[in-house]
Amino acid sequence: MTKIGILGYGNLGRGVENSIKQNSDMELVAIFTRRNPQDLKINSNAKVVSIDEIEQWKDVIDVLIICGGSASDLPVQTPKYAQIFNVIDSFDTHAKIPEHFENVDKSAKENNKVAIISVGWDPGMFSLNRLYANAILPEGSDYTFWGKGVSQGHSDAIRRIEGVQDAKQYTIPVESALELVRSGKNPSLSTKDKHIRECFVVLKEGADKEKIEQQIKTMPNYFADYTTIVHFISQEELNKNHSAIAHGGFVFRSGKTSDNTNHVIEYSLKLDSNPEFTSSVLVAYARAAHKLAQEKQFGAKTVFDIAPKYLINKTNEEIRKTML
Amino acid sequence: MTKIGILGYGNLGRGVENSIKQNSDMELVAIFTRRNPQDLKINSNAKVVSIDEIEQWKDVIDVLIICGGSASDLPVQTPKYAQIFNVIDSFDTHAKIPEHFENVDKSAKENNKVAIISVGWDPGMFSLNRLYANAILPEGSDYTFWGKGVSQGHSDAIRRIEGVQDAKQYTIPVESALELVRSGKNPSLSTKDKHIRECFVVLKEGADKEKIEQQIKTMPNYFADYTTIVHFISQEELNKNHSAIAHGGFVFRSGKTSDNTNHVIEYSLKLDSNPEFTSSVLVAYARAAHKLAQEKQFGAKTVFDIAPKYLINKTNEEIRKTML
Repeated sequence: MTKIGILGYGNLGRGVENSIKQNSDMELVAIFTRRNPQDLKINSNAKVVSIDEIEQWKDVIDVLIICGGSASDLPVQTPKYAQIFNVIDSFDTHAKIPEHFENVDKSAKENNKVAIISVGWDPGMFSLNRLYANAILPEGSDYTFWGKGVSQGHSDAIRRIEGVQDAKQYTIPVESALELVRSGKNPSLSTKDKHIRECFVVLKEGADKEKIEQQIKTMPNYFADYTTIVHFISQEELNKNHSAIAHGGFVFRSGKTSDNTNHVIEYSLKLDSNPEFTSSVLVAYARAAHKLAQEKQFGAKTVFDIAPKYLINKTNEEIRKTML
Repeated sequence: MTKIGILGYGNLGRGVENSIKQNSDMELVAIFTRRNPQDLKINSNAKVVSIDEIEQWKDVIDVLIICGGSASDLPVQTPKYAQIFNVIDSFDTHAKIPEHFENVDKSAKENNKVAIISVGWDPGMFSLNRLYANAILPEGSDYTFWGKGVSQGHSDAIRRIEGVQDAKQYTIPVESALELVRSGKNPSLSTKDKHIRECFVVLKEGADKEKIEQQIKTMPNYFADYTTIVHFISQEELNKNHSAIAHGGFVFRSGKTSDNTNHVIEYSLKLDSNPEFTSSVLVAYARAAHKLAQEKQFGAKTVFDIAPKYLINKTNEEIRKTML
């Protein structure tokens, strides 16, 4: 059995709690929170513990799954708790991964712990597919499409406009661009060629509809270069129809092995719940972290460093017999 | 540099020779053949050497890529040459993989060699995708579709019918079955629900068309349970239009993480050349074999045992920075 602790009980933490129930070799023993433990309603028999007491669980927990945010939680929490526990996080600020890796690696190595960072689907499963496909087809082009799903950054950008009460922005892959890539024509496509931006906006009373639509559509970086669709709706409608946590996307590599011989590798995800899927990836890698710790392979790791066999609750003989 | 030897110069061997040219860290040094070396016209500067002299290359070659057939070549060759070289093969008789693994493992371990077996796309990339997806979604269903591509076994079965001169059989995925899986409905589908069989048949003079069509369509296991389409064509037409080596397929896993929350993971390949793609996978894993041998991780391995980082000609820092 792998004994799991969860740090942080938001969407991701709840997803991990759920996912552990699907894995018979794992046991959730404690949920650590910055809130008052009495205030947490959880969906399992785990103990709810104040984060101040986390050190007492040093010898009880095999892997701590850190379910904080990438902006301010994880850069502090992951290196800190890698001193005490084997840890996993879903750090997803791509540009800062090398720095985060170094910090976590130092603290994990000094304390003989395993720390797997940037686990999820992008970074995570999408990254794996980029790497495998690049290794197989060294001469080719990569394409990543995101969506359909809500982009938090773009929704926030709309909310910052004066007169906007609330907003959700969906990133939607352009179907014709997907088809062009699938055809093996190796097109040159920028992010804006690949995606449409659809916005659902709730106005404050008296706000100027046309002016706000104009402000959204001309916002540099976020919307100006894109096909942007703006809908104005009521707060009730937004709450009812746009609290969706569905997401997904596509990773392609298209490349030649000789003059007229092209190959297209496509990986795609269609997720009813972004946080629940990410949680399930975290749990699979928590299993790997425990096994790697038993083998004393200490230090920071990413999905690139981990052989697939470590992820699954089956023996090597079983997987060779049933999955190869 | 990884110094490569190729054993066997058919479609697969030629594909490996080609693929090595796309990988700047690899050098093809020798092609070993059972034929008279003078008779081989090759597409590189490699030495062509009789298989009888292969032992002399023991200290020259880092990895031997064995490009023989799974029926009779590889069960003998891979364990034999794993005594002398680090080796890779594409053994694809799924049912016999456990036995092949044991044989190869014994000989590789006794001689401090790395031997990676069953490398390609199925087994190979499809297997990896089955494993990753099962680890993430333990409660769900797997679906593998093959094609569109020629099935050698089914083509052979038609050729064995009296009155048939030549034949090619295409396995074609059923579009509506693909869509049903993509929808997340988790349908129960047998192999016959998922595939159509289209046959192009050349008759011998005087052969009975209707009788042969009947014999094909009612052939147990191969065709009887399938939607089977039979076309009679001339030998010229078969040679001209049906020497295709294109292939591909789809691997899905569809599963729930909670009651109304389903996820669909899809991986697909669209290959202009089955042997060239397989060769490219072999070459990527040859790189891994060389690195693993340098780390003294001896014994037989499959794609499940190998961390993705070993496959690519980039440093760990580079892949974290550019692909994660």
